[in-house]
Amino acid sequence: MGEKGSGGRDRGSQETGELPAGEVRAALHRAADLVADYLEGVERYPVVPRIRPGDVRAQLPAAPPERGEPLDALLADYARLIEPNVTHWNHPGFLAYFATTGSAPGVLGELLAAGINAQAMLWRTGPAPTELEEHVCDWLRRLLGLPEPFRGHINDTASMSSLLAIAAARHRALPDVREQGLTGHAVPRLVVYASEHAHSSIDKATITLGLGTSGVRRVPCDATYAMRPVALAEAIADDRRAGRRPIAVVATVGTTSSTAVDPVAAAGALARREGLWLHVDAAYAGPAAVCPELRHHFAGWEDADSIVLNPHKWMFTPMDCSVLLLRDPDALRAAFSLVPEYLRTAERGVTNLNEYGPQLGRRFRALKLWFVIRAYGAEGLRTRLRAHCALARAFAEWVDREPGFELVAPVPFSVVCFRAVPHLPPAEQDAFNERLMAEVNAAGPVFLSHTKLDGRLVLRLAIGNIRTERRHLETCWTLLREAAARLGAQTP
Amino acid sequence: MGEKGSGGRDRGSQETGELPAGEVRAALHRAADLVADYLEGVERYPVVPRIRPGDVRAQLPAAPPERGEPLDALLADYARLIEPNVTHWNHPGFLAYFATTGSAPGVLGELLAAGINAQAMLWRTGPAPTELEEHVCDWLRRLLGLPEPFRGHINDTASMSSLLAIAAARHRALPDVREQGLTGHAVPRLVVYASEHAHSSIDKATITLGLGTSGVRRVPCDATYAMRPVALAEAIADDRRAGRRPIAVVATVGTTSSTAVDPVAAAGALARREGLWLHVDAAYAGPAAVCPELRHHFAGWEDADSIVLNPHKWMFTPMDCSVLLLRDPDALRAAFSLVPEYLRTAERGVTNLNEYGPQLGRRFRALKLWFVIRAYGAEGLRTRLRAHCALARAFAEWVDREPGFELVAPVPFSVVCFRAVPHLPPAEQDAFNERLMAEVNAAGPVFLSHTKLDGRLVLRLAIGNIRTERRHLETCWTLLREAAARLGAQTP
Repeated sequence: MGEKGSGGRDRGSQETGELPAGEVRAALHRAADLVADYLEGVERYPVVPRIRPGDVRAQLPAAPPERGEPLDALLADYARLIEPNVTHWNHPGFLAYFATTGSAPGVLGELLAAGINAQAMLWRTGPAPTELEEHVCDWLRRLLGLPEPFRGHINDTASMSSLLAIAAARHRALPDVREQGLTGHAVPRLVVYASEHAHSSIDKATITLGLGTSGVRRVPCDATYAMRPVALAEAIADDRRAGRRPIAVVATVGTTSSTAVDPVAAAGALARREGLWLHVDAAYAGPAAVCPELRHHFAGWEDADSIVLNPHKWMFTPMDCSVLLLRDPDALRAAFSLVPEYLRTAERGVTNLNEYGPQLGRRFRALKLWFVIRAYGAEGLRTRLRAHCALARAFAEWVDREPGFELVAPVPFSVVCFRAVPHLPPAEQDAFNERLMAEVNAAGPVFLSHTKLDGRLVLRLAIGNIRTERRHLETCWTLLREAAARLGAQTP
Repeated sequence: MGEKGSGGRDRGSQETGELPAGEVRAALHRAADLVADYLEGVERYPVVPRIRPGDVRAQLPAAPPERGEPLDALLADYARLIEPNVTHWNHPGFLAYFATTGSAPGVLGELLAAGINAQAMLWRTGPAPTELEEHVCDWLRRLLGLPEPFRGHINDTASMSSLLAIAAARHRALPDVREQGLTGHAVPRLVVYASEHAHSSIDKATITLGLGTSGVRRVPCDATYAMRPVALAEAIADDRRAGRRPIAVVATVGTTSSTAVDPVAAAGALARREGLWLHVDAAYAGPAAVCPELRHHFAGWEDADSIVLNPHKWMFTPMDCSVLLLRDPDALRAAFSLVPEYLRTAERGVTNLNEYGPQLGRRFRALKLWFVIRAYGAEGLRTRLRAHCALARAFAEWVDREPGFELVAPVPFSVVCFRAVPHLPPAEQDAFNERLMAEVNAAGPVFLSHTKLDGRLVLRLAIGNIRTERRHLETCWTLLREAAARLGAQTP
């Protein structure tokens, strides 16, 4: 056990500077092979590692080593202790949550960005990273068919992108919020509208921004789990009558539970009439707009104030990369810009990315996105997204035709919501489906997750990994039917 | 020009799945060499590239390619267009802001983390990443000499770590803030105390959290630019008398302008007496506590509620990696945790990292920090931090002995604040120093930044890059004296 052994060899204890160049180069090549081996052979792992909480920590020494250890020892411990004990998001059998891909071009981008250690808080501290971020976001805008006013800003997560959008809405509604905040003077209750199926990040954003979870009005949905515009209009009217102050509407294209599509155009018309900010949460589904035949789901988003989509979800980009597209980026800059003397630079007319959010420091995330878009090309992205949607439709058909299973939501993109319908009282069906999921996931080759729709536990199959093929879905479907039969035989 | 040429070869346009394994492996090795070459040869570049705003974008095609391009073409464009046009944070002549290092072990960690594309929002979606984050933060706690209650949580930046700390303080003061927010009902003005030299991220945090910039009381400093405890006590008393509600004190160890050290123990005593949260911003200087002889600067931080330090600043870890150490992590969890059905998992008693902040998704940052600590070892870290402090003291001595230059602040760590004192009216001395900085920076081998102290423009020399040696400071000092002589000869 290299890890629990001695404190390492006597390297570095008397030295300054970086490690020897030869050792560094050799380790980079060794790591390159580790990554290549991993990407080629990830299917030898179960998607979810078979370990118990604490198993990894139990193998780590309590104290850090006094003396430096060879890079080879670190890489060996990575291969022994870390790689087998991660949940394999890069596994083609990963069908849970929103399935993602850390694609090869994306990994290359991360490696190179780490090497230069770019920190593009200012144009001056990262000219190429700043300009590439602006440029690649404009490429994305073109790919999605959005009009020119939209400009992009890359954040870590959709949670943060949506938080920034709501902060900009808050600032537009209360321009003195920057200086005066929300305390110590009379501010009406600020309200953000989102469907009952909107993501929990909207609540986290309002918690953070001082609006509270009660500052999110959850608007009822129709039978497809999409927001009802009439209910939205009623909620806004109710709040105005009660003296509350509506500030923003969040319309989701591709909700987390079922990838439902809120009626963006209707929500936008209401938002404009009421003078509210329209934020479109397309964190998962946004990349689908690259395909013209899927663009109808997004109708109306071209009139939004802000749109979030995550290349790290369904656009093959390693975690983390969330793009916030803004019709008026100055609205975000107005909400956050602060330029202390130590950040003042001589350049005029440049974008200083730190002015568009709470963080000063910024990683160089545009590089991997540039690589991903170029490596696959617009047509290559379309082909892959279409293949995922076709796989989802195929799986949905299998479910639909199978006695004892049912589809529970439309399949507009690449996620299928379904459940087993055993001959059991309704109250016991949820537990049956939860056991079913646990059995299938324990098998190893696939990983499903769940949600609740209409109060019932529902299984989700999400396609988003670039390596997922029909054979993975066939395996999943076989496992599901076998486990359902087994569990059904066990129940009276 | 590969970039502006045709749309690339016809690869990927009809294909699904990942790029060919052989091409991926070859590209990873090519990128490994690019990084190794860069780290070995970074000094061939001027620290700040000699380009004008827009130069990079002008070389990029307006539209993304329709068809996929070979990975080799991407790497070639990186080498041609990006690498020469970044500000070289990994250059040993980078002496601006806080100098940092994306060290070799850290780069390896980033590469491997990208390969597995870990997303440790839940223990279940990242068992090893979750446990390694907890464990390596505990290593860091031990290295710093902090007591056991402290547990770490890794964020992207100190801006976010401090925001979370203040959010936890806000929640402790107003437990219903999660649900009720700060609007629509009477909430007294909430006040956070920080020195007049505290970082602008504190203001950004209060803007975000709905306290506004007026929710930060800037406490006057003494002649060393450290917060005056008497002034802090007075400010708190004033606010209480005026009906405002103090919630937190931010004490900085290593301010951004001059690395001044606020009296943490005195601030902490006041915070305890007043029932306020004590947050210690040691984003830059924190790693210095690894050296016992420097630990006196931190006296009292062991009683803080929260401490932030950034391994991506002075601990050789690539951007981004900020560690928030919390005495009571549950206070943060209480402020942010939300568990919708689709995130519920069967495991009990595990840490689900998404519950400790607004973001759901999380990169695997612990891997690079694990590698950095192990590659250098505790003693190797100490040796390198001591070398940086010794270099700073040497430079400070040169300045101190030189007629026409003066030191303007103590040098407790690795940053020197100084200025030229030309025979000019005081009103013209700032412009002289700004020209001096511009001339030195234009030379290429070094990069300095500036700040203002007591209303005067001051130059900053910051040592933090692992490759910075005495010869780089000698070059800087020669450039400074030559430029000062040249500029002095030009002025009447």
